[in-house]
Amino acid sequence: MTGAGVPLERSSGTPASFRDLWAEIAPIGRDPASGGYLRYAFTEPELALRDWFRAQAARRDMTVTDDGNGNLFAWSGDPWPPDTVLTGSHFDSVPHGGGYDGPLGIVSAFLAVDRLPRDAAAKVGVVAFAEEEGGRFGVPCLGSRLFTGVIAPDRAAELRDAAGVGFAEALGARPAGARPDLLGRVAAVVELHIEQGRNLDVPVGVASAIWPHGRWRFDFTGDADHAGTTRMADRRDPMLTFAYTVLATNKEARLSGAHATMARVTVHPNATNAIPSLVRGWLDARAADAATLDALVEAVTKRAVDRAGRDGTGVRVEPESVSPEVAFDARLAERLAGALGGVPILPTGAGHDAGVLSGHVPTAMLFVRNPTGVSHSPAEHATDADCAAGVDALAFVLGTLT
Amino acid sequence: MTGAGVPLERSSGTPASFRDLWAEIAPIGRDPASGGYLRYAFTEPELALRDWFRAQAARRDMTVTDDGNGNLFAWSGDPWPPDTVLTGSHFDSVPHGGGYDGPLGIVSAFLAVDRLPRDAAAKVGVVAFAEEEGGRFGVPCLGSRLFTGVIAPDRAAELRDAAGVGFAEALGARPAGARPDLLGRVAAVVELHIEQGRNLDVPVGVASAIWPHGRWRFDFTGDADHAGTTRMADRRDPMLTFAYTVLATNKEARLSGAHATMARVTVHPNATNAIPSLVRGWLDARAADAATLDALVEAVTKRAVDRAGRDGTGVRVEPESVSPEVAFDARLAERLAGALGGVPILPTGAGHDAGVLSGHVPTAMLFVRNPTGVSHSPAEHATDADCAAGVDALAFVLGTLT
Repeated sequence: MTGAGVPLERSSGTPASFRDLWAEIAPIGRDPASGGYLRYAFTEPELALRDWFRAQAARRDMTVTDDGNGNLFAWSGDPWPPDTVLTGSHFDSVPHGGGYDGPLGIVSAFLAVDRLPRDAAAKVGVVAFAEEEGGRFGVPCLGSRLFTGVIAPDRAAELRDAAGVGFAEALGARPAGARPDLLGRVAAVVELHIEQGRNLDVPVGVASAIWPHGRWRFDFTGDADHAGTTRMADRRDPMLTFAYTVLATNKEARLSGAHATMARVTVHPNATNAIPSLVRGWLDARAADAATLDALVEAVTKRAVDRAGRDGTGVRVEPESVSPEVAFDARLAERLAGALGGVPILPTGAGHDAGVLSGHVPTAMLFVRNPTGVSHSPAEHATDADCAAGVDALAFVLGTLT
Repeated sequence: MTGAGVPLERSSGTPASFRDLWAEIAPIGRDPASGGYLRYAFTEPELALRDWFRAQAARRDMTVTDDGNGNLFAWSGDPWPPDTVLTGSHFDSVPHGGGYDGPLGIVSAFLAVDRLPRDAAAKVGVVAFAEEEGGRFGVPCLGSRLFTGVIAPDRAAELRDAAGVGFAEALGARPAGARPDLLGRVAAVVELHIEQGRNLDVPVGVASAIWPHGRWRFDFTGDADHAGTTRMADRRDPMLTFAYTVLATNKEARLSGAHATMARVTVHPNATNAIPSLVRGWLDARAADAATLDALVEAVTKRAVDRAGRDGTGVRVEPESVSPEVAFDARLAERLAGALGGVPILPTGAGHDAGVLSGHVPTAMLFVRNPTGVSHSPAEHATDADCAAGVDALAFVLGTLT
């Protein structure tokens, strides 16, 4: 077992430790004010991370390919060999997110490949998926959804960021969409990721499932008017309906033992002295099973509609992306957990590219301990020792799969 | 009396009707999607309106001066004659605001000057004040506050817009600040403005007072975290405290017979799947007297702080601009209302440059009927006939003051 900071040697003579590689990418896209990361897909910091990916591949004499959907792959041997084992994660972040969510899986993938014998390494593709967070174009796991055909390339091409730039424009081409020719060569996928809920008290665990989850857009509409002069009784203020729905979301989530949040809002016109005409809020909801999730979203919607009736406002609810429960391959999870010495097998509330892939090929996830559970935050953290243990575990798992 | 659409002749031979002049500026800064106006101070549409102001002056052989604070003045005779009567308003709008709030007073000022005999016209300065709405730099009536010395030029110079551009940069110079040399020459100020609260059922009225009012910034702070994975009980979500405060604001305003609104919010990081670290909301509050206003803001603050205690969040309240009650010169108001045939004298909840000026020189306001009361909205409207009646009234009032 190799600890953090101990340089590793591989056949090509490239020394690399977790700490070394981590230090290379740590400054990229970091906001000096918040300490969080602004690594949106195909923006300058994320492009710099893609350059770093290519440089890492070049250091190892690996070939880099892409799939026409913005996903990058690095290969020690010929690209897409029979029974390919894919491992990696994503570079993009939520606004002011942490540095581990995504990049840890890619850095660990390169370091794990360094440990493998040449024949085994030749079976492995290191992957960086595009737009996992949906932070720029609104649909999470966009790269893996395109690759697997879960989203149509025409629909993806039409997605726009906040500045109106289309996904196809950011990509530099219309997305290629489903690649059954490549996916058909994949025998297994392993994504290593930082754990995100304070549910792991040993360095490494294996995922059992991803809770069903989704995001729903709530458009609350009212009548724009002067905040200073309009009588209270004459108002149709959609901010009131939004505010009530925020509180209802929290209450319903607690009642049902689920997770639900309204953390994002846009207001039109968003002026101090103007009653809004439109308040748009996004519901993020997740539960252990689909029935609980459906009941939760229905309850929040009912409360929003009831309140809108009292406020004289309108409300329209639009699902933006809804992901059913993902149960990872149970036999694979048990096999890996056993091979790693009986580490815990645990579910997560967070979506991942591995969840998308699991609908098509045997897929597993390794989690690295998160001592505070904090994620999507500048305070997200894992220790160097746990990250190094994650690399050890990933290398071991890849060794058993190749 | 001259109705809408009837061309007027003045000494220089320039024909101008309300409808003609209104049609010239109607397209400037209008958002085709909302139908509202985006005329922020010193942005392209507002600069175009300033060019229009200069062109109107040139058509009438008027001289244009500025005061080093971004306020423009047009003069038929020598600038700043003894016993100057200033009349005008502002060009800037709230985001997606109406076209009447501000520009109506400037268009009416030019048309009223057209009606005056040469000697009387030579006493009148037509004024366009800068940044009345505070829509770009956050401080309403910024131009008139600088001119009168109510705000220090150093403080104004440091104000920044959402993109980080400073007021001094937008102005092209450090603001000159108080101009007692010019203000000392002013005998009276008359601002014509669209009424904003459905309180006027005849074409024209005269203002009695502006309610004391202000804007307070509420910073709600919590712990950024993953919305999908963080247990409900572990959260410190400032969106909840904000939402509760929105509802408390509405309730307290109703209880106290005042007006209070939280219509503007910014969220950090404002991502669907990230519990915010900061939610910033702005309270706009107005009441008929200072005691009611103070009690209202105190009640809202107390509720916000109580709720923050339950949510495990923080709250900090910062007054951004607080304006005491403005009682316009009562004798002047009665004189003008009488001269206009006994029109109503009424208060308003909206701030105006005339309110700032009234602390220094005898000041009056004329209101033009607003049939729906809607303002700060694309739906803001006054009829051409009422606007023409406003011009008649303003010309008459200027005639009595010069």
